[in-house]
Amino acid sequence: MEPVNLKTLAERLNLSISTVSKALNDSYEITAETKKKVLALAQELNYQPNPFASSLRRHKSKTIAVILPEIANNFFALAINGIEAVAVEHGYHVLIYLTHEDYNREVAITQLLLNGRVDGVLMSLASTTENQNHLLELRKKDLPIVFFDRVSEDDAVSKVTTDDFESGYNATQHLVDQGCRRIAHLMFPGHLSIGRKRRDGYLQALLDNNLPNDPELILSCNNNSTQNYNAILDLLKSNNRPDGIFASIEKLALNTYAACAELNLSIPDDVKLISFSNLETAQLLHPSLTTITQPAYDIGKEAATLLFKALKRKPVGPETAVLKSVLIKRNSTAIRSTGNV
Amino acid sequence: MEPVNLKTLAERLNLSISTVSKALNDSYEITAETKKKVLALAQELNYQPNPFASSLRRHKSKTIAVILPEIANNFFALAINGIEAVAVEHGYHVLIYLTHEDYNREVAITQLLLNGRVDGVLMSLASTTENQNHLLELRKKDLPIVFFDRVSEDDAVSKVTTDDFESGYNATQHLVDQGCRRIAHLMFPGHLSIGRKRRDGYLQALLDNNLPNDPELILSCNNNSTQNYNAILDLLKSNNRPDGIFASIEKLALNTYAACAELNLSIPDDVKLISFSNLETAQLLHPSLTTITQPAYDIGKEAATLLFKALKRKPVGPETAVLKSVLIKRNSTAIRSTGNV
Repeated sequence: MEPVNLKTLAERLNLSISTVSKALNDSYEITAETKKKVLALAQELNYQPNPFASSLRRHKSKTIAVILPEIANNFFALAINGIEAVAVEHGYHVLIYLTHEDYNREVAITQLLLNGRVDGVLMSLASTTENQNHLLELRKKDLPIVFFDRVSEDDAVSKVTTDDFESGYNATQHLVDQGCRRIAHLMFPGHLSIGRKRRDGYLQALLDNNLPNDPELILSCNNNSTQNYNAILDLLKSNNRPDGIFASIEKLALNTYAACAELNLSIPDDVKLISFSNLETAQLLHPSLTTITQPAYDIGKEAATLLFKALKRKPVGPETAVLKSVLIKRNSTAIRSTGNV
Repeated sequence: MEPVNLKTLAERLNLSISTVSKALNDSYEITAETKKKVLALAQELNYQPNPFASSLRRHKSKTIAVILPEIANNFFALAINGIEAVAVEHGYHVLIYLTHEDYNREVAITQLLLNGRVDGVLMSLASTTENQNHLLELRKKDLPIVFFDRVSEDDAVSKVTTDDFESGYNATQHLVDQGCRRIAHLMFPGHLSIGRKRRDGYLQALLDNNLPNDPELILSCNNNSTQNYNAILDLLKSNNRPDGIFASIEKLALNTYAACAELNLSIPDDVKLISFSNLETAQLLHPSLTTITQPAYDIGKEAATLLFKALKRKPVGPETAVLKSVLIKRNSTAIRSTGNV
């Protein structure tokens, strides 16, 4: 029996080979109806797309890897959707690897990828990552890599971020505008540049408003939720407690809700709260949460677009894109709490 | 120069080869300190773990695939953590593939896996999946597969679920106990058995309480959030609106919050709400959400454990595990809304 290949399918369906290939790769150029027809016949004839056979000829796996710190995070969930939208257009598969914020796992995954399993890598660093030697190894292998959100500080790599400094500044300025004078910052865990930039924006806004910079008001958080919760509790119990809190990640905002409930403190009457967040339920919280919302889907899309540019032509210089976040005012920073919420 | 292998590392560090191997595979049996030492030397000597070279000899990729419908879902985020905990113990890597609830993507991914990229598959079906031919192909290839949560109806495969029928029954009984007499069900999208079981539990509870079964009170939801929202809005606008709602997934509960806000209906005074959910913010919502919470982490762990059993000995018969969910009472089903929340 003849092997079933793209040509077989194309002839039987009276379509071009290119159309059949795109349909099987779920390309956006092909209608749902055509895809359905192609897939139905492919199944019927037990067609094996075998991207390895064809891709090995070109030394390509037709696969990109996305290395993420965690999955229970709306920013990454949305960014993945943006990445997959671009990958599908190029007929690529996306593999997701999780580091669980663990530097050792990140190193193990990057070493695994050195073996040629994928054509390119999109990566957001674990918060515990300090040493970047493992990233240099990837670059030496000429494996295209684009960082997004939590990026490498290496100037020679492509990266996509939001405007972390400006957003930190705007978040703090918003609290000042709402009447806060003693503003705490719950800092991004670890030593990544993303955390420093958000903090520097906070410090600059304090300076511009002639507010003192009290080191006790900057909480160095980590990846242990219980420890973070207790530190926030202590901060709020102090005689000289803050009247505003700027959280660098949404988990820390949720810890703050819990700590305020424990201490019977009202948000926003006793303490106002703003946080970086892509939380779907921000509007439904009690009170609703004022957020700095990153264009997560677009950040993923842009990072993937840069990666496919790098895959197509070599050598390619490093490119950098900065996509602005949006401040969405809700009740957690209202001057006074409203009756209902 | 001699190639750097496990033996080189072991000799230099005065450890056993097995310890070095486990350390590199991030096994839980090895202390953080030892892992650090091993990884530092591995990096220094540019050791390439190359699981392919060793695994090809055994026809093993040392990798399992997890096929998920979506990533922005707390159940799957937690289940992944359970899966990875088990995989790490076995020194396996985990690849995550997303179907985005799309049957065609699910077929494309399963066909890709037929090419031997992974040793086994864990899978939760897309809600649009009806035809299960692609799953039969996987089984024919003798690729071990375990389903979890949204499982295949094929009796010959291993699966791990929660007690969907009982949980549907208990959710409905709880609404009856809180005084509801006209209870709507927001049904799981598609035609998977998980949706039917939850609905059947609902119907049985109505029957046992001598409450009429009104087909208008069962809303067939889909994956379009706007359409679901509008359908819930229509349900709540009707002259004969329900006084209780049992949502089969948390997204539908969030749509219900939004629809009640739009119509100025109070949860729980006008309508009580209970939902299947692993939402981290359930306690912080306004009002806090009564949930049927699945043991997501344990479901992932159990599914991975069954898969590794299947990887170790062949042939293996199908195994089934059912892990109980927990009903957590909060304010969305209170008899009367409390002053504060």
